[in-house]
Amino acid sequence: MVTVLDDLTRERLKTVSVATLTTLLFKRGLRNVFLQSVHPVGPGLPRMVGEAYTLRMIPAREDIDVLEAYADPAHPQRHAIEHCPAGQVLVIDSRKDARGASGGDILLRRLMVRGVAGIVTDGGFRDTPAVAALGFPAYHQRPSAPVGPIWHHAADTNLPIACGDVAVYPGDVMVGDGEGVACVPAGLAAEIAAEAVEATAYEDFVEAQIKLGRRLPGIYPATAESRAEFERWRQGQAS
Amino acid sequence: MVTVLDDLTRERLKTVSVATLTTLLFKRGLRNVFLQSVHPVGPGLPRMVGEAYTLRMIPAREDIDVLEAYADPAHPQRHAIEHCPAGQVLVIDSRKDARGASGGDILLRRLMVRGVAGIVTDGGFRDTPAVAALGFPAYHQRPSAPVGPIWHHAADTNLPIACGDVAVYPGDVMVGDGEGVACVPAGLAAEIAAEAVEATAYEDFVEAQIKLGRRLPGIYPATAESRAEFERWRQGQAS
Amino acid sequence: MVTVLDDLTRERLKTVSVATLTTLLFKRGLRNVFLQSVHPVGPGLPRMVGEAYTLRMIPAREDIDVLEAYADPAHPQRHAIEHCPAGQVLVIDSRKDARGASGGDILLRRLMVRGVAGIVTDGGFRDTPAVAALGFPAYHQRPSAPVGPIWHHAADTNLPIACGDVAVYPGDVMVGDGEGVACVPAGLAAEIAAEAVEATAYEDFVEAQIKLGRRLPGIYPATAESRAEFERWRQGQAS
Amino acid sequence: MVTVLDDLTRERLKTVSVATLTTLLFKRGLRNVFLQSVHPVGPGLPRMVGEAYTLRMIPAREDIDVLEAYADPAHPQRHAIEHCPAGQVLVIDSRKDARGASGGDILLRRLMVRGVAGIVTDGGFRDTPAVAALGFPAYHQRPSAPVGPIWHHAADTNLPIACGDVAVYPGDVMVGDGEGVACVPAGLAAEIAAEAVEATAYEDFVEAQIKLGRRLPGIYPATAESRAEFERWRQGQAS
Amino acid sequence: MVTVLDDLTRERLKTVSVATLTTLLFKRGLRNVFLQSVHPVGPGLPRMVGEAYTLRMIPAREDIDVLEAYADPAHPQRHAIEHCPAGQVLVIDSRKDARGASGGDILLRRLMVRGVAGIVTDGGFRDTPAVAALGFPAYHQRPSAPVGPIWHHAADTNLPIACGDVAVYPGDVMVGDGEGVACVPAGLAAEIAAEAVEATAYEDFVEAQIKLGRRLPGIYPATAESRAEFERWRQGQAS
Amino acid sequence: MVTVLDDLTRERLKTVSVATLTTLLFKRGLRNVFLQSVHPVGPGLPRMVGEAYTLRMIPAREDIDVLEAYADPAHPQRHAIEHCPAGQVLVIDSRKDARGASGGDILLRRLMVRGVAGIVTDGGFRDTPAVAALGFPAYHQRPSAPVGPIWHHAADTNLPIACGDVAVYPGDVMVGDGEGVACVPAGLAAEIAAEAVEATAYEDFVEAQIKLGRRLPGIYPATAESRAEFERWRQGQAS
Repeated sequence: MVTVLDDLTRERLKTVSVATLTTLLFKRGLRNVFLQSVHPVGPGLPRMVGEAYTLRMIPAREDIDVLEAYADPAHPQRHAIEHCPAGQVLVIDSRKDARGASGGDILLRRLMVRGVAGIVTDGGFRDTPAVAALGFPAYHQRPSAPVGPIWHHAADTNLPIACGDVAVYPGDVMVGDGEGVACVPAGLAAEIAAEAVEATAYEDFVEAQIKLGRRLPGIYPATAESRAEFERWRQGQAS
Repeated sequence: MVTVLDDLTRERLKTVSVATLTTLLFKRGLRNVFLQSVHPVGPGLPRMVGEAYTLRMIPAREDIDVLEAYADPAHPQRHAIEHCPAGQVLVIDSRKDARGASGGDILLRRLMVRGVAGIVTDGGFRDTPAVAALGFPAYHQRPSAPVGPIWHHAADTNLPIACGDVAVYPGDVMVGDGEGVACVPAGLAAEIAAEAVEATAYEDFVEAQIKLGRRLPGIYPATAESRAEFERWRQGQAS
Repeated sequence: MVTVLDDLTRERLKTVSVATLTTLLFKRGLRNVFLQSVHPVGPGLPRMVGEAYTLRMIPAREDIDVLEAYADPAHPQRHAIEHCPAGQVLVIDSRKDARGASGGDILLRRLMVRGVAGIVTDGGFRDTPAVAALGFPAYHQRPSAPVGPIWHHAADTNLPIACGDVAVYPGDVMVGDGEGVACVPAGLAAEIAAEAVEATAYEDFVEAQIKLGRRLPGIYPATAESRAEFERWRQGQAS
Repeated sequence: MVTVLDDLTRERLKTVSVATLTTLLFKRGLRNVFLQSVHPVGPGLPRMVGEAYTLRMIPAREDIDVLEAYADPAHPQRHAIEHCPAGQVLVIDSRKDARGASGGDILLRRLMVRGVAGIVTDGGFRDTPAVAALGFPAYHQRPSAPVGPIWHHAADTNLPIACGDVAVYPGDVMVGDGEGVACVPAGLAAEIAAEAVEATAYEDFVEAQIKLGRRLPGIYPATAESRAEFERWRQGQAS
Repeated sequence: MVTVLDDLTRERLKTVSVATLTTLLFKRGLRNVFLQSVHPVGPGLPRMVGEAYTLRMIPAREDIDVLEAYADPAHPQRHAIEHCPAGQVLVIDSRKDARGASGGDILLRRLMVRGVAGIVTDGGFRDTPAVAALGFPAYHQRPSAPVGPIWHHAADTNLPIACGDVAVYPGDVMVGDGEGVACVPAGLAAEIAAEAVEATAYEDFVEAQIKLGRRLPGIYPATAESRAEFERWRQGQAS
Repeated sequence: MVTVLDDLTRERLKTVSVATLTTLLFKRGLRNVFLQSVHPVGPGLPRMVGEAYTLRMIPAREDIDVLEAYADPAHPQRHAIEHCPAGQVLVIDSRKDARGASGGDILLRRLMVRGVAGIVTDGGFRDTPAVAALGFPAYHQRPSAPVGPIWHHAADTNLPIACGDVAVYPGDVMVGDGEGVACVPAGLAAEIAAEAVEATAYEDFVEAQIKLGRRLPGIYPATAESRAEFERWRQGQAS
C-alpha cells in the first residue's frame, strides 16, 4: 500500500479536532465519518493520525477458534500486529461486539514498539488498566477481559470494513483525539487538513470574541464581515 | 467451489427441523449455529437447504454508493445474484442493520428463476409483500423499504461472514424452516443429516407416547429401555 | 399452593381483554402488569387464564448445563413440566434472552395433556411451527431453535420472578389474549374480573354508539349521563 | 391546513409501493423517509394515503397523567381524534416507546367513522386483535395493552414531530402498504407520485422479463435500450 | 416566564444530592425524575441548579438541515443560545440520539458568558475535551463529534419535552451533580429543597454512626428514637 | 456457607488480572465468566477478591415496594447488608436494569465497616460521587440516583443468580480489578489462582522482551523454547 499521508498533512491533522473534520466532510456530503460508541481507552492519550490498516473479525466457531490457533504466525490478528506498517493505524471490525477482546496490552505494546500510530476497534480491549498506561492511542467501546477467540475469529486483513458503523477503506486516514475517531477518505485528506487548519483558526477567533461577551449572530457562522475582521485579528495575533 | 451436499443429505435435511440440528451440533460442541433475529419473510414458505454463497455489506459512503453503481455487472450484489450457483443459498452479512434493504422482489425472483435454493440476510428485504408471495425461501430481520445503497455497500462475495451473529463460511449448509435458519459446517452436514433423521423418528415416538398420557421421565431424554421400546414402536409403524 | 381462582372469576377473565385489565389495575396504582415484548406463538390460540407457577433460569455454565442433566427428574425445568398444576400457567423467567429455547413442542404437548392452562416465557420457544399448531396458549418473545442449556440453567421453581419486566409472584393470575399477557395480583383477581366484565359491557355500548357516528366526548370516558344511557341500552340488548 | 393532495396524486400513490417511493426520494437526496420498526397492525389492511396530522407524546408524570384527564375534550389526544381532517393520517410521535398504548380500538373506530385515512405511531396500539379486524390502516411497533397515560402525555398537535426516526411535518404525505410507511414531503408528492407510476410500470416489465429467464444486467437498472424495449412492451400490454 | 426559584431554594438545592431529591419526589408519587443515561461531560464540574428552558430536536431532513440554516438568528438552536435566561438551564430533547451533536464548545462558552446555569441533552456534545475544560455544568449521553444538522433539526423552544425519558416542562427545576440530573416540578421545588436539606443532615448523622460501627436497623430508615438522637447529635455538631 | 478461599489463594488472586483469569477458565471450557457492562464505580479502587454472597432483585410492584418496607430488618436487601460475611462480596442480580439504584453510599459504607470485600451489581449505584470516594471496591453499570424500590424488589439472598449475563453461584470467587469482574467457580479457585500467578510471570517476561523489540511469534503464545528462556529470565530476575 502506498502511503497517502504527506508529512504536512499528518502534522496539520494532529492540530485540529475530530469535530472540525466531521464538519468539513459534511460540507462535501459525507455524513457518516465519526465512529459511533468508540472512545479513547483512557484520558490524556496522544493524538492519533495514520492510514487505516484493517483487520476483520467474524463470530467464533468452537472447533476453529482455539487458543492454539495463535501459534500460527499467519493468524490474521497476529499477522496484523507484525505487518501493520509504522505510521499507520490498525482498525478492527469487531461487529460492535465487546463480549470478547480485540487485543490486549502485549499486542498493543508490540504495535507501539513497531511505530504503529494507533489502534481502533468497535469491540473492546483487555488489560485496559495496563493499556491506558501505555501512552499509545487506543480506541474501543468498553473494556473486555475475555480472550478474543471466545467470541471472535480473525478472518482477514486490509479489506474494506465497518468500524463503529462507519465504512473504513484501507488507506483512509484515521484521526483520533480525546473525543473519538474520524475516518477521512484517503483522497480528501490533504485538502481537508488544510481547510481544517483554517477553520480552527477562525474558531479560535470566535472563542476569543465570545470571551469578550460578543453574541453569536454575525460571527458564527462566519459572514464576509466577520471573515475580514478575523483576518485582521489573526495578523494581530501573529505579530 | 465444490458442492458438499449429496442428494441424500439434501433430502434428509429437508425433513428435519432446524431445532433438531441445533441439538446435534451442540452435542459436538457447537453452540452458536442458529441465526439470531432472522425470520422467514412470510408464512408457508418451502423448506430451504443449500450451501452458503456469501455476500458482505459494509456501511455506505455517499460518494461511492449511488444508484448508478448498480449498472456495473461486477457490482458485488449484482454479481452475487447472477453467480450464486443453483442449489445454493445466498447469505448476506448486513451487520444486522435493517435500515436499508439487502434486496427486493426483482432480485429474489431472478434468484428463484436461476434455481438458487434461498436467500438469507440479517438485515431486511424490500417489496416484502411481493417477496412473501414468491414462494421462495427468504429470511430476514424485518421489512426494509429503503433502497440498499442508502445504508449498505456491497463489498465482496464468498468470504467468511457474520450473519445473525453466526459465522458462515462459504460452503456451509444453510437449513431453513418456519422457525429460522441453522448453519451446519460443511464437514458435518452428512453425518448430522443422518443423525437428525434418527432423532426425528425418536421424537415422533415421544410425541405419540405423550399424546397417550405418558410422563416425560424415562422417555425424554431417551434411556436404553425407551430406545428399545422405540425400535419396536418404529417397526410397528412401518408394518 | 392454594388455588386463588374460583370458577366464576376464571370464566369472567376469559371474556375480557388484557387491555381492559391493565386499565383497572392502573386505577389501583399498578402500572407495570403487561409483559413487555411477549407475544402469542401464533395466531388464533385459545384465551389463557390461570395462576402462575414459576420457573427461573439463570445463565448456563458449560460444566453444569449439559444435555445429560435433563435425565434427572428433579431437573427444575422437567420438574416444572410434570408438577405445574392443571389449570395453572407455567411462567418462565428467561431474563429476556431468546438466544436459547425455554422449551419446545414435546414439553408443551405434555403440559397440554396434563391440563395446564398455558405457558409464558420472556425468552423463546423452539419447534415453533409445531407449537403454533398445538392449539395450546403459549407466549414468548421470538422463535429460538437452540436447545436451552446452551444459554440457560433452570435454577428453581415457584419463587417470585421477573417475566417481560413484570414481577410475577406464584399464584398471581396470568391472563392472555391475542395481544399478550397481563399479570393480575392474586388478591385482586376476583374484584378485577367482576369490574372488567362491567367495563367491557360499557365499551361495547361505546363501540355501538361510535358506529352510529357519535363523538367521543360525553361517552368516553363515561359521564353520569352516559352511564345512565348505557344502562338503558344494556336492558334493551338483554331483552 | 390546506390539503396538498389532489385526487390524481392520491390515486397514483395508492397503486405504487412504499419501496418505490423511497427510491425516488433517495434520487432527490432524501435518505430517511421510511419509518423504522413501524408495521401494519395486521395482514390484509387497505393501502393508506393521506396528509400527516400530528400528535406529540412526551413521558407521563404521575400527577398530571391520570385517567380523568381524558374527560377534557381539549386533551390533545382526544382533540386529535375529533379534529384530524377526513382523508388525512394521524401520525403520533411516541418516542418509539411501546410500553404504553398510543390508542385503542374505540379511538381508531371513531377515526374510521370520521373518514380519516389511517393512523401511525412509533409506539404501540392496544386492543390489537380488534384493531386488526377493523379494516382500518393502522401502523405501529408492537401491541401494547397498557393504557397510554401510564407512560405517555399527549402534549400538542400538528407540530413537526419524529416518528420511527423520521421527520414528519404536518401536511407531508404518508403512504402505507403491507411493508410499512413512507413520509413524502408535501412539496414533492405530486411529482413523486407521477414518477412512481412510471417506475412501477418499468418494474412490471422487468418482472415479466425475469420470469422469461432474462438476466438482470441490461434491464435493471434500466438502459436506453431497455427503456425503448419497455415502451414497446407497454404498448403491447395496453393493446 | 416567571422565575420559580427564589435564592434560598436555589442555594439549598446546590447543597443536596440528586439522589436525595429523587427519594423525596418518590414520596410524592413521582417515580420518573432522573434523566436516564445522561452524564456530566467530565469530572469536577460545578453543581447545576436552574429552571428549564427547553429546545426540541426532530430528525434532520437533507433539504432543510444544511449548515447555512445556522446563519438565521431565528434558528431555534441559535435562538436558544441567545435567549435562554441567565440562571436557567438549557434542556435539549435530542430523542436520545447521540449520532449528531446537540452543541459544542463555542455555543456552551456563549451560554456560560451569558450566565446560563448549565446545559443538558440526552444526545451528545462535540468538542468535549474543550467542553470539559470550560468548568460549565454540561450533561449528555456520550461525546458526538458530528455536526448537529446531520441528524437533528432544531424545531422549537420552550415547549414541554422528553429528556432522558423524563418529562421536562419549561420552568421545572433542573438539578445536577456528579451523578446526573433530576427534574423537580416547578411547584414542588421550594418544599422539596427545604426537605432535602433536612434529609441530608439526617444522612450525615447516619454516616457518622456507621463510621462508628453501628448497624443500619434502627437508624436507617429513621425511627422516632433515631430522629430524637439525631436532633441531639445535630445540636452537638452546631455547638 | 463454608469459606472456599484459603489465604494463599486470596493473596494470589489479588496479584493477577481479571483478563488472565478469563483465559485460564476458557482453557477449561468456561466461556462466560466476565460480567458484561459492569465497571468500577470510579478510578483507583483497591482490588477485590471474595466469595459471592448473592442478592436477587425482581421488578417492583407499587403496592409492595414502598419506602416503609426498608424498616423491616428481614427485608432481603437490608438483611444482605448486615449478613454478607466479612471477606465476601455482595453480588446483586438487578436484571441489568439501572433505572433504579441497587444501593447507595450509606449501605456501602456499612458493608465496608463490616469488612465485606466488595459489592457488584449489574444495575447502578446511587450517591456515586460519595461511593467513588469511599475506597471500597464497587462495580456497577452506570450511576442511578433513583431510590431502588421504584424499579426493584429485593426477593431473596444467596440463591444462584445472573449478574452481567454470567451465572454466579453463592461461594464462587469474585475477582475485580480496574477492568471489571470475573466469576471463578468455587471448585476451581485454588488451582486457577496458582496457574494465574505463573501465567502472569510469563506475561511479564513477554512484556520485557517486547520492550526490547522482539517479535510476538515464538514467545506469544509460548513455545517449549520460550518457556525455557523464561525460566532462565525468571531466575535472573529473582537473583
